[in-house]
Amino acid sequence: MQKNFSFKLLRSALGNTVVGGLALILAQGFLIMGCETGKVATTDGADSYPVTLVIHGGAGTISRKNMTPEREQEYRKALQHALDTGFSVLTKGGKSIDAVIAAITYLEDCPLFNAGKGSVFTYSGRNELDASLMDGSNLKAGAVAGVTTIKNPIQAAHAVMTQSEHVMLAGRGAEQFAAEHGLTIVDPSYFVDSARYEQFINRRKQQGTKDAASPDGPEKKFGTVGAVALDQYGNIAAATSTGGMSDKRFGRVGDSPIIGAGTYARNTTCGVSATGWGEYFIRLAVAHDISAMMEYGGLSLQEAADSVIMKKLPALGGDGGIIALDQKGNIAMPFNTEGMYRGYIRSPGKAEVFMYKD
Amino acid sequence: MQKNFSFKLLRSALGNTVVGGLALILAQGFLIMGCETGKVATTDGADSYPVTLVIHGGAGTISRKNMTPEREQEYRKALQHALDTGFSVLTKGGKSIDAVIAAITYLEDCPLFNAGKGSVFTYSGRNELDASLMDGSNLKAGAVAGVTTIKNPIQAAHAVMTQSEHVMLAGRGAEQFAAEHGLTIVDPSYFVDSARYEQFINRRKQQGTKDAASPDGPEKKFGTVGAVALDQYGNIAAATSTGGMSDKRFGRVGDSPIIGAGTYARNTTCGVSATGWGEYFIRLAVAHDISAMMEYGGLSLQEAADSVIMKKLPALGGDGGIIALDQKGNIAMPFNTEGMYRGYIRSPGKAEVFMYKD
Repeated sequence: MQKNFSFKLLRSALGNTVVGGLALILAQGFLIMGCETGKVATTDGADSYPVTLVIHGGAGTISRKNMTPEREQEYRKALQHALDTGFSVLTKGGKSIDAVIAAITYLEDCPLFNAGKGSVFTYSGRNELDASLMDGSNLKAGAVAGVTTIKNPIQAAHAVMTQSEHVMLAGRGAEQFAAEHGLTIVDPSYFVDSARYEQFINRRKQQGTKDAASPDGPEKKFGTVGAVALDQYGNIAAATSTGGMSDKRFGRVGDSPIIGAGTYARNTTCGVSATGWGEYFIRLAVAHDISAMMEYGGLSLQEAADSVIMKKLPALGGDGGIIALDQKGNIAMPFNTEGMYRGYIRSPGKAEVFMYKD
Repeated sequence: MQKNFSFKLLRSALGNTVVGGLALILAQGFLIMGCETGKVATTDGADSYPVTLVIHGGAGTISRKNMTPEREQEYRKALQHALDTGFSVLTKGGKSIDAVIAAITYLEDCPLFNAGKGSVFTYSGRNELDASLMDGSNLKAGAVAGVTTIKNPIQAAHAVMTQSEHVMLAGRGAEQFAAEHGLTIVDPSYFVDSARYEQFINRRKQQGTKDAASPDGPEKKFGTVGAVALDQYGNIAAATSTGGMSDKRFGRVGDSPIIGAGTYARNTTCGVSATGWGEYFIRLAVAHDISAMMEYGGLSLQEAADSVIMKKLPALGGDGGIIALDQKGNIAMPFNTEGMYRGYIRSPGKAEVFMYKD
């Protein structure tokens, strides 16, 4: 009941952010207030785990020289809002799985990031979205890949986890499943950010530049959003969503919808969400590898995360980063790129967001 | 050069098996002779690794009481032929990746198994195929998911690995990629085994039995084929191919095309191919987990394989099995079902095949 209640409340609040600015401001006010009070609702007296949420908005060549103060402020606000949105679920006594869905839903709806609305374009000018999530308390997981009409792919991944016997659904089948289970279906044009589409069309018109750098900016080419949460019950959940690799062809599937590569969660080790050059994350089974290094090798969260992202990944030629947390509320956010949109919030606390290496 | 030569030789031999019985008999004679000589071609004098091939043809309720002597003989012959086919690549000095492709290509072409021709039907009466493979020497990997027109999905997975920057392609995009790269494209009707299709149609006509046990026999519902090889250079490769879960809907993707779940290979640990209830294999990242238990926990191949298949998997409610080998040529073939079609061959050696627990 708690789960449904908090989730519906958030969906209704988040839905408004798409409809109008006034509703957005109201929702923001509500959520930031919720954050500032910083109190954990302990209806059952349980408060032994340090309620924590960590998020990312993609890794890449994010540097001060490529960023205007206005744009930086936009990203900071959006990351803070995503943190506050997810954290308010946790402080109300909600579950980690609902907190990551709430945070990701906001990031999917925000056109700044390569997930949901504002996703990059495939080679043929479409938006093909992937998402996955995992509940570390029972190792249940759900994922959708290559979907084009589901407004919030992370909610479809959740429906796959909770309302089917499957883990991963792809393409039109996934869309049909989402429609049958009451998720919001949109016209593919919903995902198009008009300024970004103009860039795409202009580039297509130019000859000889089809292999040039992404018009979306290099940090968007492999952009992803992710969230990992620890709730007051000690349950860890992780979630990842993406618009995929820009200019991708041939139904390419990256690491984001792959349990073990882009997303993994196990209460006794950690939760992980990845962002970066997906092929390398699949080959290293990055998210599961960090969990396994803790489980079998006795490494700390930071040691395991650093080992995979700062050593194994560049050794193979890949780049990107991850966010992770463990049951003690430790967080790790290593990346081997110039920057990574990221942030965290702890109980009681204020959202901290970062973009660059320093 | 060696790679291309041996692969072409095998492709031409295997291609004939589809065309006519005479060619099949000739090819069989050639390959079995190749096996019986049992000598490793040591053009460069290298023979320090015990050349080994292990395969599976699916796990499930395979028991003597459900099996006729004739049908048992068919399965034994097919498994032996697959082993001989792959092993002849190794004994000619070929690479493990080409050996597993050769073995899987034969199993895909053989209608007895749930992969390639003879695959089970989806809910809507289609054959949707998945395959993946991984080279343990460099962690390169390739996979295709949900394809309906590629005669040998394992060869498409290999093309993805070697001729694209991607690891996984899905659906029509994967089919387009395969066609552009010269793989054999067939009409979807090619995969239909007529006797099996009649069963499917009869069942669809009957009311109220749509959730009954699979007409394909319970061992086919989650059937898969797989191969893992160690070549004379010490390189391990693993490959898996499947027709998926019978009656599957909504574009369901199982573990077979997921690197880390159904397939994994790393020279310093092991190669693994899985078969069983795919959702559980994804949630446990079974193939990568076995590798990680060896790498970080210091377990032997058998200990790691048994721990995952005989303890973790049933604890979660899943069933199935895996085949695996390490660089010393140790093999493991644990399963927690009634039976698993499986076998291995070592240098110099005779193919050994098994079906039941004893």
